[in-house]
Amino acid sequence: MSVFKTINFRIISHLMGLLLLVNGGFMLLSAFVSLMYDDGVVQSMFYAASLTFLIGGIIMFFSRHHRKEIQKKEGYMIVSLGWIIMALAGTMPYLFTGAIPSFTNAFFETMSGYTTTGASILSDIESVPKGVLFWRSITHWIGGMGIIVLAIAILPLLGIGGMQLFAAEAPGPAGDKLHPRITDTAKRLWLIYVGYTLAETLLLWAAGMTFFDAINHSLSTLSTGGFSTKNASVAYYNSQPLIQYIIIVFMFLAGTNFVLSYFAFKTKFSKILRDEEFKLYFYFVVGLTLVAALFIYFKADPSMSTIDHPMVYGPLESAFRHGLFQVLAVVTTTGFVSADFTAWTPFLTIFFFGLMFLGGSAGSTAGGIKIVRHLIMIKNGILEFKRTLHPNAILPVRYNHKAVQQPIVFNILAFFILYMLSFIIGVLVFSLMGLDFQTSLGGAASTLGNVGPALGDLGPVENYGGLPVAAKWWASFLMLIGRLELFTVLILFTPFFWRRR
Amino acid sequence: MSVFKTINFRIISHLMGLLLLVNGGFMLLSAFVSLMYDDGVVQSMFYAASLTFLIGGIIMFFSRHHRKEIQKKEGYMIVSLGWIIMALAGTMPYLFTGAIPSFTNAFFETMSGYTTTGASILSDIESVPKGVLFWRSITHWIGGMGIIVLAIAILPLLGIGGMQLFAAEAPGPAGDKLHPRITDTAKRLWLIYVGYTLAETLLLWAAGMTFFDAINHSLSTLSTGGFSTKNASVAYYNSQPLIQYIIIVFMFLAGTNFVLSYFAFKTKFSKILRDEEFKLYFYFVVGLTLVAALFIYFKADPSMSTIDHPMVYGPLESAFRHGLFQVLAVVTTTGFVSADFTAWTPFLTIFFFGLMFLGGSAGSTAGGIKIVRHLIMIKNGILEFKRTLHPNAILPVRYNHKAVQQPIVFNILAFFILYMLSFIIGVLVFSLMGLDFQTSLGGAASTLGNVGPALGDLGPVENYGGLPVAAKWWASFLMLIGRLELFTVLILFTPFFWRRR
Repeated sequence: MSVFKTINFRIISHLMGLLLLVNGGFMLLSAFVSLMYDDGVVQSMFYAASLTFLIGGIIMFFSRHHRKEIQKKEGYMIVSLGWIIMALAGTMPYLFTGAIPSFTNAFFETMSGYTTTGASILSDIESVPKGVLFWRSITHWIGGMGIIVLAIAILPLLGIGGMQLFAAEAPGPAGDKLHPRITDTAKRLWLIYVGYTLAETLLLWAAGMTFFDAINHSLSTLSTGGFSTKNASVAYYNSQPLIQYIIIVFMFLAGTNFVLSYFAFKTKFSKILRDEEFKLYFYFVVGLTLVAALFIYFKADPSMSTIDHPMVYGPLESAFRHGLFQVLAVVTTTGFVSADFTAWTPFLTIFFFGLMFLGGSAGSTAGGIKIVRHLIMIKNGILEFKRTLHPNAILPVRYNHKAVQQPIVFNILAFFILYMLSFIIGVLVFSLMGLDFQTSLGGAASTLGNVGPALGDLGPVENYGGLPVAAKWWASFLMLIGRLELFTVLILFTPFFWRRR
Repeated sequence: MSVFKTINFRIISHLMGLLLLVNGGFMLLSAFVSLMYDDGVVQSMFYAASLTFLIGGIIMFFSRHHRKEIQKKEGYMIVSLGWIIMALAGTMPYLFTGAIPSFTNAFFETMSGYTTTGASILSDIESVPKGVLFWRSITHWIGGMGIIVLAIAILPLLGIGGMQLFAAEAPGPAGDKLHPRITDTAKRLWLIYVGYTLAETLLLWAAGMTFFDAINHSLSTLSTGGFSTKNASVAYYNSQPLIQYIIIVFMFLAGTNFVLSYFAFKTKFSKILRDEEFKLYFYFVVGLTLVAALFIYFKADPSMSTIDHPMVYGPLESAFRHGLFQVLAVVTTTGFVSADFTAWTPFLTIFFFGLMFLGGSAGSTAGGIKIVRHLIMIKNGILEFKRTLHPNAILPVRYNHKAVQQPIVFNILAFFILYMLSFIIGVLVFSLMGLDFQTSLGGAASTLGNVGPALGDLGPVENYGGLPVAAKWWASFLMLIGRLELFTVLILFTPFFWRRR
């Protein structure tokens, strides 16, 4: 017997309609940006916004429902379908304005936006109309906003994601079904998200960016997206170190658990300093930056990069800044580029390739495997040695002074294995489509981890525009499953999901 | 308080002495081979054998002991130290005869031999005296013999290795301490090992190999080592498909659990057909061969390989044979080369790189992660989806119709993560030593998995002779930890191993 009768498609449709309305709203905002800057595509932008509104409205009208609670299976479908429908609707501004005429490219760009990957098929970004560029940055910001709510409030209830560990900590609900109370949590975290975005915009503006570039880069930073309004990405600002340091600070913040920012605003600093994931994230960033900076300073040929990077305060500062910037850009999966990390030394290419498997903190907008999972895996690995020596001892993994339940440790280990499996299949498929060794490996790691720049033909100074059509769709799929923590999407492909029990 | 007082170093020394005597015996055998073929190094070979005997004898004499049982911690030290001491003593035939004058190179070659990796620093193998070549093949065979006993009888007692799963099945002992009864098991399995080796030797001889080449290739095949007596490895026999098919059959056998061979000789075939690891191993080989053969047939440029491979029975048979041969050579971690798999197509390079992470069956002489671990990981991964949907259901992994105990599943997941971590550190260190992207990745995967040929500068038609000295030592370390299932060696580096509790 099929599960279809128990799944309430009305409620799913209703929420899809709602999502489209929200997106239509942001499209309208982008249309106003077009109007303000008189970029010549105002009309097309308004058409896109209107059509999105219209479709969303019709769907909502025909799917009114009475039930308030959402079942688990419906939850998975809503999350996966939501991202796909947003990516479909989000192509309209690109297609209608002609900024990206091909549907495949437009879909790739939108999926890369909503998944906060930041991989782009555009080769001349600066020629794109301002309203469209704003829409492009907004897709990041919507995706980032969505993922905070998902990670902190929804995925733990669906049994997915490192945030299960924080279930008790989070200022939100706990229980077995999705509940309107999640809106309380969401509101608080959105406020922080909006606040950070405004703060970065003002600081970047004050530091010398144009207001337009400032807001776009802020939208991209806080969502750990990585779309820039400049062809050279943040390397455009290589002669303005202050701008890069501001972005560095906000990349760091965007890669931390937003719940910790909430604690910070409540001046509960001890909670932050005691948080083991935050500590490891901090140590990782410091340690990895030191390694990168030392190698850049002592080993890298100054002529190695195709991106111009003048040394405003001398070579040491420059090595430190680019090391820190690129470490944060890759670890937080933002993917901004201040310099071509594949051009420094062969070691640093491997190094940054490895960093693509780290990921930021759980409950942040960052993608990837996430620090907390690595932490649990490391702790469990050490315990496994002890268990080997003392097979009868019961040695639970402890996290933030509490014993972690075995099913959660199991879930994290299984996630890692599934991640590696997805990576390997990702590489094989890319390779089948004709991509070379480095490009396949880098492309799969980067799209699955929602980083953006990869290696080889998809390196930091390249773009994804030259990929075969099939590879663009495959990359879009990898971005989606990586963003939604694998299980959420892949569970829809299991036969038992569709079985009624 | 230190653990040193509780560890009985006499018993450890005693066993090291015994190992040296056994090795001295095989060295003596190699010296007789030198004598028989009058290869000009008889005297040096006898010196090496005598010195090994002498050192072993002295150590044994001064470390007589009374206790019969070995403690767990002593067990780990014996296994790791044993392999290292064998590799140290095993350098003598190379050094004394001048076949490999550098100690680093001689140690690498010996470690590659005992760990059944088959990576070689020799560029002109055919110029090496026959007695030394025989010794080289014998190191594989000793290593393979040792690993069967380890995997089936010793490591499970130390709480390591996929063979824990077979603890009840194995025709051996069970308990908490190492016990003389393991010799019963060992004897039966050695008999099979010796029998297979003799059978392959005779078949290869009958198929047209010289007797010397036949015995050497048999020693390398059954141990899944990969040293050949020919510069071109098994590609030397590309015009004699029968020889390659014989090697294919024995590579397959060497990659299966030797306990299954034991059942086969007891005509308990149903036990074999019901064995889930064997079934998956079989399906893997069939499926992967089909993929490889199809790509070779349809996509590979006939001029792509630097190794001559005439198509004796036409291109289809040739594609099938090389596909099957290379799939088995990599999956069973033998590492023989019938054709340069990195020269076919970019996809097949990635494909074979991926296969380096498979490994043969537990309880075989193959290295790598092992099929049974993949099987448990796959099963657990599927169950994790079910657990996500039904968090309250208790869903144990089932293997061969029995529920696998959770600690064993945990151990397997932790092993995989530790393996990937070792791989990543392996790659980074190689890269630090100046190896390029492909060479670092391939080299780490191949040495850790005890395969042999890798990618790039360490590809199937290259050798390890050109590596920097430090990289040769690093590769030796990776071969050792990979061979001994990581935990066995790495546990010696943990502080709590040395703590008395």
